[in-house]
Amino acid sequence: MSLPSLRLKPKADRRLRAGHLWVYSNEIDVAATPLNGFAPGTQAILETAGGKPLGIVAMSPQNLICARLLSRDIKLPLDKSLLVHRLNVCLSLRERLFDKPFYRLVYGDSDLLPGLVVDRFGDILVVQLASATMEQHKDDVLAALIQVTKPSGILLKNDSAARDAEGLNRYVETAFGVVPEWVALEENGVKFEAPVMEGQKTGWFYDHRMNRARLAPYAKGKRVLDLFSYIGGWGIQAGAFGASEVFCVDASAFALDGVERNAALNGFAEKVTCIEGDVFEALKELKAAEERFDVIIADPPAFIKRKKDMKNGEGAYRRLNEQAMRLLSKDGILVSASCSMHLPEDDLQNILLTSARHLDRNIQLLERGGQGPDHPVHPAIPETRYIKSITCRLLPNS
Amino acid sequence: MSLPSLRLKPKADRRLRAGHLWVYSNEIDVAATPLNGFAPGTQAILETAGGKPLGIVAMSPQNLICARLLSRDIKLPLDKSLLVHRLNVCLSLRERLFDKPFYRLVYGDSDLLPGLVVDRFGDILVVQLASATMEQHKDDVLAALIQVTKPSGILLKNDSAARDAEGLNRYVETAFGVVPEWVALEENGVKFEAPVMEGQKTGWFYDHRMNRARLAPYAKGKRVLDLFSYIGGWGIQAGAFGASEVFCVDASAFALDGVERNAALNGFAEKVTCIEGDVFEALKELKAAEERFDVIIADPPAFIKRKKDMKNGEGAYRRLNEQAMRLLSKDGILVSASCSMHLPEDDLQNILLTSARHLDRNIQLLERGGQGPDHPVHPAIPETRYIKSITCRLLPNS
Repeated sequence: MSLPSLRLKPKADRRLRAGHLWVYSNEIDVAATPLNGFAPGTQAILETAGGKPLGIVAMSPQNLICARLLSRDIKLPLDKSLLVHRLNVCLSLRERLFDKPFYRLVYGDSDLLPGLVVDRFGDILVVQLASATMEQHKDDVLAALIQVTKPSGILLKNDSAARDAEGLNRYVETAFGVVPEWVALEENGVKFEAPVMEGQKTGWFYDHRMNRARLAPYAKGKRVLDLFSYIGGWGIQAGAFGASEVFCVDASAFALDGVERNAALNGFAEKVTCIEGDVFEALKELKAAEERFDVIIADPPAFIKRKKDMKNGEGAYRRLNEQAMRLLSKDGILVSASCSMHLPEDDLQNILLTSARHLDRNIQLLERGGQGPDHPVHPAIPETRYIKSITCRLLPNS
Repeated sequence: MSLPSLRLKPKADRRLRAGHLWVYSNEIDVAATPLNGFAPGTQAILETAGGKPLGIVAMSPQNLICARLLSRDIKLPLDKSLLVHRLNVCLSLRERLFDKPFYRLVYGDSDLLPGLVVDRFGDILVVQLASATMEQHKDDVLAALIQVTKPSGILLKNDSAARDAEGLNRYVETAFGVVPEWVALEENGVKFEAPVMEGQKTGWFYDHRMNRARLAPYAKGKRVLDLFSYIGGWGIQAGAFGASEVFCVDASAFALDGVERNAALNGFAEKVTCIEGDVFEALKELKAAEERFDVIIADPPAFIKRKKDMKNGEGAYRRLNEQAMRLLSKDGILVSASCSMHLPEDDLQNILLTSARHLDRNIQLLERGGQGPDHPVHPAIPETRYIKSITCRLLPNS
């Protein structure tokens, strides 16, 4: 072990001792340990102003978050051995949680593997490396994943914007074995196929699993509208839970091909209707046509990607939810979700209340969900919690 | 209709128009409509400073919350007809949610029936009247419940402290048909009997149903400790979900008799151990005996009943959770719950983080739950949300 030291300013160790894992560049004693002395992706021993070691960090010296804690034990640097240990800890939780091997196996910082995300689709793993350190340890990551999960194929889906800030190029490549374009998965007992190469993110959003499971009592026998449907995560599950009709709206023809594929896979193609187009336009047209739905799911892509999008993004959530409410039947259910980490849950709740009041309808909040337990939240890092889902009931105001 | 008017001060209608249902005594134009002109339990037409009617309120003229909105339609006062309508709206939600008739049928303000709580145990209803208005309409309430749900017995469990502020005496009485001392119920497929006359509140806590359902993957094959077990809501369900051993701790011998009764009812009396005594003392003794558990549930009674209990209460939550964590096995699960409306969820989360750091253990937050959907939250009234449950995983720090 001969890792270089990264020296903190006085008192900058407090937040880390309290549980946080990130180091900001303005917390470094750059006179003692200049940040430009570190190459991106290297490891260092983080130490207090007094020289006491706090653990091993992965360096992103050019970023605001210039280092992330990998281990509080300075004898455990990131290598294949640590990766195998961490992956076994990840796997034991997921195997406890789920009967079948379809889940997020690794969720970055929360699993003490900053910069690494792995979604498992049975024998196929889809991996995202989002830091220079993980990119440099790509071979170790692959070897550890092969040892722990014995996959038949591993896809590196390294095309996220996060890589730009790390000075990494974007690429998608089959790194091991064979990976088909569409892979099979099961969620809440419903079968799907997901486009891992061409689709959004890793091809599937396991994060809403628990919230989708809760659709069952509301969807049964009802007419359901799934907005921003992608390949039908919500809508197809509503269909499998007994919805009488399902309408999926998405701007992407490719995504809607996925909806049709998944509807057929579950044997109810006839009750699913796809509407291709801008969701806000589609909402207006459905209103003009006096269509009504018993259950509407509004799970848009993040309208607030950065803090400066806050005002416009809130406005978009407000318009979406109010327009959706206008299409609800007399005793209707709205599932309103957000994956914008910057949108506080209370803001979403307030949007629902004010929208209901505008429409002079009474509102009850029935369920409140977050990301599933295969996306653990790190209690010191609010950024690790991003999914919000509120299920509400809209009634006439009398 | 000849209800008296209750006149608001200028601008005091804003909060109500935004969705709130409560009127505070300092918002009343007492020169125009003196509060001492109203008898407790009467109804009035709430109006703006300009005389515009906002709806019908139930009066508690002697209280800080001097009136609660019953209806925004001034043609709909509280009477048997409105009660039947409201109960049907309540029932249609619960019948959609649950296969079997075991649930909270009415949850006060959130169901637009302020002062009324009804828990349903099949053919038996347990009713709590917490306002002078509901007490005065007792006969209408009973008649409406009989019409809508056709029960075989109704118990009035009117012994809550809330009644004192309304100037109502406390009493428990069978108001209709026959009510046995222990009534049967089913929750998450597990059978129970609850002591509706002698037990806490209505005899059972339906509010944690969804959180208890989520015990299943964690409890299977594991050694489980249920603190403040009451009659075994968590512990017995853990047993039914496949726990190898269950230990229930409660200070009440009566409650632990209920645990034994419910363990026997489910056919696994042999794997349940009851420990009678103060929970904090029991935790010390279990620690001294070097006992370890894979899953611990800490669901205490409200440690913070009033705002002034905040500091002491937080200390109690902190001690409870930290002592519980000390008894967890290497890869252990803690379910930490609070029914203190005054304890913010973030405070509970922070208690878990700091406790884990004290013990030098790594913590992952896996699940976050609230009260079930038969306890709807009114989005304008934060007081209607009170249950918090956080499931976390405690790991060695390496």
